[in-house]
Amino acid sequence: MTTFSFLDDYSEGAHPDILRALADTNLVQQAPYGDDDYSADAASRIGAHLGEPFQGAIHFVASGTMANIVSISSCLRPHEAVIAAASGHIVVREAGAIEATGHKLILVPAVDGKITPENVKTALAANAHFPHMAKPRLIYLSNATETGTVYTLAELRRLSALARERGLILFLDGARLGAALASHKNDAALADIASLVDLFWIGGTKVGALLGEAIVVCNPALAEDFAFQLKQRGGMLAKGRLLGIQFRALFGDPPLFFDLARHANAMAARLAAGIASCGHGLAAPTETNQVFAILPDPVVVALRRDFAFYVWGESAPGQSVIRLVCSWATSADRVDAFVSRLASLSGPENAVLD
Amino acid sequence: MTTFSFLDDYSEGAHPDILRALADTNLVQQAPYGDDDYSADAASRIGAHLGEPFQGAIHFVASGTMANIVSISSCLRPHEAVIAAASGHIVVREAGAIEATGHKLILVPAVDGKITPENVKTALAANAHFPHMAKPRLIYLSNATETGTVYTLAELRRLSALARERGLILFLDGARLGAALASHKNDAALADIASLVDLFWIGGTKVGALLGEAIVVCNPALAEDFAFQLKQRGGMLAKGRLLGIQFRALFGDPPLFFDLARHANAMAARLAAGIASCGHGLAAPTETNQVFAILPDPVVVALRRDFAFYVWGESAPGQSVIRLVCSWATSADRVDAFVSRLASLSGPENAVLD
Amino acid sequence: MTTFSFLDDYSEGAHPDILRALADTNLVQQAPYGDDDYSADAASRIGAHLGEPFQGAIHFVASGTMANIVSISSCLRPHEAVIAAASGHIVVREAGAIEATGHKLILVPAVDGKITPENVKTALAANAHFPHMAKPRLIYLSNATETGTVYTLAELRRLSALARERGLILFLDGARLGAALASHKNDAALADIASLVDLFWIGGTKVGALLGEAIVVCNPALAEDFAFQLKQRGGMLAKGRLLGIQFRALFGDPPLFFDLARHANAMAARLAAGIASCGHGLAAPTETNQVFAILPDPVVVALRRDFAFYVWGESAPGQSVIRLVCSWATSADRVDAFVSRLASLSGPENAVLD
Amino acid sequence: MTTFSFLDDYSEGAHPDILRALADTNLVQQAPYGDDDYSADAASRIGAHLGEPFQGAIHFVASGTMANIVSISSCLRPHEAVIAAASGHIVVREAGAIEATGHKLILVPAVDGKITPENVKTALAANAHFPHMAKPRLIYLSNATETGTVYTLAELRRLSALARERGLILFLDGARLGAALASHKNDAALADIASLVDLFWIGGTKVGALLGEAIVVCNPALAEDFAFQLKQRGGMLAKGRLLGIQFRALFGDPPLFFDLARHANAMAARLAAGIASCGHGLAAPTETNQVFAILPDPVVVALRRDFAFYVWGESAPGQSVIRLVCSWATSADRVDAFVSRLASLSGPENAVLD
Repeated sequence: MTTFSFLDDYSEGAHPDILRALADTNLVQQAPYGDDDYSADAASRIGAHLGEPFQGAIHFVASGTMANIVSISSCLRPHEAVIAAASGHIVVREAGAIEATGHKLILVPAVDGKITPENVKTALAANAHFPHMAKPRLIYLSNATETGTVYTLAELRRLSALARERGLILFLDGARLGAALASHKNDAALADIASLVDLFWIGGTKVGALLGEAIVVCNPALAEDFAFQLKQRGGMLAKGRLLGIQFRALFGDPPLFFDLARHANAMAARLAAGIASCGHGLAAPTETNQVFAILPDPVVVALRRDFAFYVWGESAPGQSVIRLVCSWATSADRVDAFVSRLASLSGPENAVLD
Repeated sequence: MTTFSFLDDYSEGAHPDILRALADTNLVQQAPYGDDDYSADAASRIGAHLGEPFQGAIHFVASGTMANIVSISSCLRPHEAVIAAASGHIVVREAGAIEATGHKLILVPAVDGKITPENVKTALAANAHFPHMAKPRLIYLSNATETGTVYTLAELRRLSALARERGLILFLDGARLGAALASHKNDAALADIASLVDLFWIGGTKVGALLGEAIVVCNPALAEDFAFQLKQRGGMLAKGRLLGIQFRALFGDPPLFFDLARHANAMAARLAAGIASCGHGLAAPTETNQVFAILPDPVVVALRRDFAFYVWGESAPGQSVIRLVCSWATSADRVDAFVSRLASLSGPENAVLD
Repeated sequence: MTTFSFLDDYSEGAHPDILRALADTNLVQQAPYGDDDYSADAASRIGAHLGEPFQGAIHFVASGTMANIVSISSCLRPHEAVIAAASGHIVVREAGAIEATGHKLILVPAVDGKITPENVKTALAANAHFPHMAKPRLIYLSNATETGTVYTLAELRRLSALARERGLILFLDGARLGAALASHKNDAALADIASLVDLFWIGGTKVGALLGEAIVVCNPALAEDFAFQLKQRGGMLAKGRLLGIQFRALFGDPPLFFDLARHANAMAARLAAGIASCGHGLAAPTETNQVFAILPDPVVVALRRDFAFYVWGESAPGQSVIRLVCSWATSADRVDAFVSRLASLSGPENAVLD
Repeated sequence: MTTFSFLDDYSEGAHPDILRALADTNLVQQAPYGDDDYSADAASRIGAHLGEPFQGAIHFVASGTMANIVSISSCLRPHEAVIAAASGHIVVREAGAIEATGHKLILVPAVDGKITPENVKTALAANAHFPHMAKPRLIYLSNATETGTVYTLAELRRLSALARERGLILFLDGARLGAALASHKNDAALADIASLVDLFWIGGTKVGALLGEAIVVCNPALAEDFAFQLKQRGGMLAKGRLLGIQFRALFGDPPLFFDLARHANAMAARLAAGIASCGHGLAAPTETNQVFAILPDPVVVALRRDFAFYVWGESAPGQSVIRLVCSWATSADRVDAFVSRLASLSGPENAVLD
């Protein structure tokens, strides 16, 4: 890969502080399967952000799909279904992982990538012919969403109120929760989320860990026997310390987690501003670390010589939407290099566009 | 943990060469989900040990349970069952992971921890009342076995011949394959195993990796669409490089994999010899990196002040079997310290035994 | 139930010929689990309608949901998904039965209740990001559809051609296949269907059997080990004769199956004509045995005193769509009574409407 | 089948009273899916035998495997396992149906076909290494057992006490519950069973119904949402009346259920006595409607010309155990014909034995 990649936020290894923490603890013997001191300390540090005193359970797993599998299958009976946005990660990017555990997904249209109480209510009404229809039981959210948008505290409160009123479990996929919390659009704290949802997870992989996600089971009733699910689904690591050490580093004092997320968002904002300064539009506002730019196709072709990114779709004939993702590892230099190249391709005199 | 642990072979982090390889490659951007250069290189290096030219597929996953889940569920239809030793890891230590994918386990008695063709034949005969009985379709082996024993090449050949004759898939769980291959009892090469089984996996976690197992699908017919299974079960890491880098280091030139396994076995042999020199017996011959010692209960109690290990069971009134596991990280000093302490507890004059 | 019911086509027991066949054979001893002479004879009689010589397999099960579960789960690997109309029975009326076997449903919009090749192609294009997306592998059709419409032979041929071109399995849910084949819109024979799809089932329950559906596995490659699936899912009856005897009666000479379906369709046509004669519209053309009438709400309320039916939804303020289903057991007298009552409620002078 | 069959207790259709009930109600319109008057009445009649007032739920399904699937999967979380006798029907005769719902079976040795508290305790102790082992959560019993033996009230009480003490669900498969209750060894009433287990089912198929089993959910906590499971597993019949009508007939006044079971047991006793009178032994005492006779192989061969039965195994060289099953439809004439033929083959002068 000789070009610079804006493909995703997991193109590099780990933040150096995390690698250093692994090296520093490497030869200390620890109990396996998550029973190590580091995992306990990491859970305690995360718990300190969740409001006092945190009564639930925190578990670490290796991947986001695993976090979703374990969280969802742990708390549903066989006939219970998941309400998710049609654009939700579990719907379109996990190869049927949730259905493979036996559960139906009920799809609702997303508004700015987000689930709304109104759409949930419509889905409940349309899935009420019992027992012929699977019973809607859990609402799946992603924050940040798949399109980089962020739920406001008010939005989360309304969804939480609805869930409690209707006896639904509220679950939040936090693969990019760091980016959400670091967004200028965000007004929710981790403790708010912990008080509003039944369970959620904090993504480590996309914020600078080698791998790892922290599942937070806020509702104590759902915490019982949770570790069995981890084991049964293959989500429990022999060297659970590997996850604990990383989350301990992410939630140190001050917590790297928020710093790294803020950096990624800042780089995305810088990139978005640069793109705008070149006279190009955005397909969506840049709320987190993803930028969706609308560019003429010849510009896209030319940019690809030096930069990697996904073409998201066509916005108009001859115009494409491209996705550019910034991460903890994206430097301002690289962003500026992209903008500079874009500027050189964007002038009215530029031959590429002829 | 102030005592020294012989609990397992995953009490430490990773071999320093592996940590170094992670650090050296850390900021190089790579494609995600196993499509990185390091994983390709690791697969190529492993393939070079498998006989020429290797036609199958190699995938990396984070845990042994995941390797078993993916390997087994990928190649069975819903009504097909797994034949396994009653002592097999998937039977007694994976929380029902295989059944959770919908498949029955048919248990056979183990002989020295191993499956025999005779016992497989008995199971086939006893499970032939079709379609009322699930159809036996895959034989699950562990090498080294759960009790530390090793299959000889002749034993593997007989099982392979039986599997082919009866249309069964032969699958080998190699959580401790390194220990098996490094055993003085072993006469099989990796290439032999690749030619005799349909699929197997090479454990990295227990031989010095932070985590990671390499699934080798030898039978090309079983390789199709394998990556979907990884993704669906939550076994595909965004930073797949993490696994590729480690297996690249394990299968360098010379391959660390075999060196580390040999070291662990040598430490176990030293420990076994030391225990014998103190006048104590073994519950099983020490073929790999596990030692099963028979000790008087007061000695066990006394040893526990300084060393951690599992008590496996009672061998006679007042006598327990303890399991001591050595690893790449076990030093001769620690082994000698254990033996020295045991010696001090074992003399006829020693008060502990009174 | 003192009113007459147009709720569905399974409000009565069985056609008297079927009850008689059960009584006539009652004390003859037969082998269990579908290995009885009657089931063999029934399969042979059905096979005679499927083109010569029929090479596949025919199995009988107790319910339509079971027929769908067994048929679909038998021929898919875990990562393979089903393409279905959003209005499909497996999507909205089977409590997540297919997902409970581990498979994702990919929804496409229906056109007149039907799947179109164009919509399948769109779904294939939108679900091609492998291995992150489940692999579309089977197309699920219902004929007649959930809204009572019928696939033409040309439509089936286009879907079949697409399925073969793209390596997809074509599966047809025939809960109301009798009604479809007896429709004035139909130009396909059973043999056509057998040549165009990979597997399908012929509904008995809705055409006059006490219970029972005949699964026809046309593609011999899919027939292997099919009986295991029946057994494993609880779909194999000890007294399999119960299903065989009924299908033997339905496919006698002449086959009752077609006669009963024709009768139900004729009653629906009579009902539709009567409704029109009262000046009311239909929400859909009456192609099979279901009538979707648009009536003023006060008329609906008044009709409910004497007749049972489902209110399907609102078509305009003050107007509802009601579903009226006719069956083998619906007499012309009952249809006429309904129309007569409707007429009495529909005149401009009628007080109910004021 | 020109010979008379003692193969099983489901070789004929239904008891004539049941067929008559079907005919008598045939054209009465009823609500579908188990919401019919007959099913309600049948449940009420069964409830009257269960102690007053019965607080649980009763559902009817088409097959015994379905009854087991629905009952077990309804009340377990994914990591929870079933303790069953190694000879249990779900273990050896249901093609992996329970595992297909994701649950592990933990096998214990049977004593006279029965589970004992001691063996359950041993299994609990051996499966306590959590969360690495699936959690034992439900005890599966069959009564009568697979070998025709019957649990005494004292035995059931001890198992029930153990289950409650250990937080286990007690489930009883009653495929042949009629035979058990009608046994001379039985001292438990239906109401006793209902008070001791959490859920059980009453087999109809083997006692004279065309098909059908009544699931009795005694523990109200387990009754919630039970109907969803029926629907999702394909166990809900459109014409649920078919099951309701039959159980209404079986539990009339006086209840045919007990009469038919007593007849079958009486025929088995007559058969066992006849076999003994010919000088042959039994492999097991005849407690219900199954007779396990030990006969010389030439006698077995000769008997097969006129009678059908299963050869269960070899008891000694030249001696086989055969299973003979009597049913509601077995006449004393047929039993006597068998005994008479056996007598003719059993004399010292008989050439067959030479």
